Amino acid sequence: MRLLHEGKAKQVYATEEPGVVLIRFKDDATAFDGKKRGSIEDKGRLNARMSAIFFEYLEGKGIPTHYLGTAGERELRARRVEIIRVEVVVRNVAAGSLAKRLGLAEGTVLARPVLELYLKDDELGDPLINRYHVRALGLAADAEMDRAEELALAVNDLLSAYLEPRGLKLIDFKLEFGRDDSGTVLLADEISPDTCRFWDRETGERLDKDRFRRDLGGVADAYREVLRRLERR
Amino acid sequence: MRLLHEGKAKQVYATEEPGVVLIRFKDDATAFDGKKRGSIEDKGRLNARMSAIFFEYLEGKGIPTHYLGTAGERELRARRVEIIRVEVVVRNVAAGSLAKRLGLAEGTVLARPVLELYLKDDELGDPLINRYHVRALGLAADAEMDRAEELALAVNDLLSAYLEPRGLKLIDFKLEFGRDDSGTVLLADEISPDTCRFWDRETGERLDKDRFRRDLGGVADAYREVLRRLERR
Repeated sequence: MRLLHEGKAKQVYATEEPGVVLIRFKDDATAFDGKKRGSIEDKGRLNARMSAIFFEYLEGKGIPTHYLGTAGERELRARRVEIIRVEVVVRNVAAGSLAKRLGLAEGTVLARPVLELYLKDDELGDPLINRYHVRALGLAADAEMDRAEELALAVNDLLSAYLEPRGLKLIDFKLEFGRDDSGTVLLADEISPDTCRFWDRETGERLDKDRFRRDLGGVADAYREVLRRLERR
Repeated sequence: MRLLHEGKAKQVYATEEPGVVLIRFKDDATAFDGKKRGSIEDKGRLNARMSAIFFEYLEGKGIPTHYLGTAGERELRARRVEIIRVEVVVRNVAAGSLAKRLGLAEGTVLARPVLELYLKDDELGDPLINRYHVRALGLAADAEMDRAEELALAVNDLLSAYLEPRGLKLIDFKLEFGRDDSGTVLLADEISPDTCRFWDRETGERLDKDRFRRDLGGVADAYREVLRRLERR
């Protein structure tokens, strides 16, 4: 298979079907713009599985995604898209960079969800940007960003509602969007503890990549616990 | 006179007239969130004079400002306002923090003006924020921010047109807004080489606080040169 793209956590391969790619999830873990590197046991398989569950759920709720189905144990089939180089973050509770930036205690509940845009550029450290920057850099059309922001806020409501009965609080998450051949904006990338913060609703325990970032231990167990709750009927 | 507020570059005093304050401009100069400190000869007088010229011009063009008139040599009379803790920056050319943040060469002309919001908070280093952060922190009502942004873009057009025949290019500038007793949003603070980047249109020479920030020398001469051009009939 021909490798089209290799990122920090995934590889994207061409397939024989036109417009269809295979996304292979790696066990590699990075943090702090790649300055911290490591590996999380079984992460590729776990994140492929969790992403599949989330994308299937969201598709069923009317969110257009790149997801087409599962393939191997750590692979998804997806529509080939051109990734928009703007990461869309939605936050319900202050944590991580937001807590630091605004001087808020981690865990402060935000009265309303906060949506942020980040330039997807490792060398620049994925800086926070706004819609004027998106225009100045020619990253996306206004209508594309309107759509991406609308979808991101809808995804927040849908995922929060899905996770609550499973004992998980959705603190924040990062989405990436892409354009397919017809120019339609689709939710792309992955949805997993690499890209979301999940806290146990009862104990507040971190069940996401912060365990890796902050050397809290039990990283793979936390990922497995999230998957276990998602698979609960 | 009773001191109401002291900032890095100005003091605000109560007057005997209700709702009217006296703003005294200091020679003190700071940069990099107060980490660099110094003094620029005669700056208080020069900035008070330049702010008066700019505010008078903008008032004449229909921009509501806090400006009421001059007082002493380094003082302005102004309407008393409650400052909104959001700095509004408008940029026409990439320079300073924008050039660094987006990896653009300083001097890159932006296809369209870029508007940015910063939280006015020295301890946090005046971080870039967006409208969601403004809401989450309860800094201003949506309508107030709509008005402030609208006024900032209008000020950009007006000042650019005013400066061009005086041989000055308006690279970027920072505005602060306040609410008066009736809740009206007014342009407040100052407009000077402390808060704007002015480049000579022919030579590209910096005629603003970057001479202080970057130890380019001739700081006071640059401020005097800008005033000389503004006073040109």
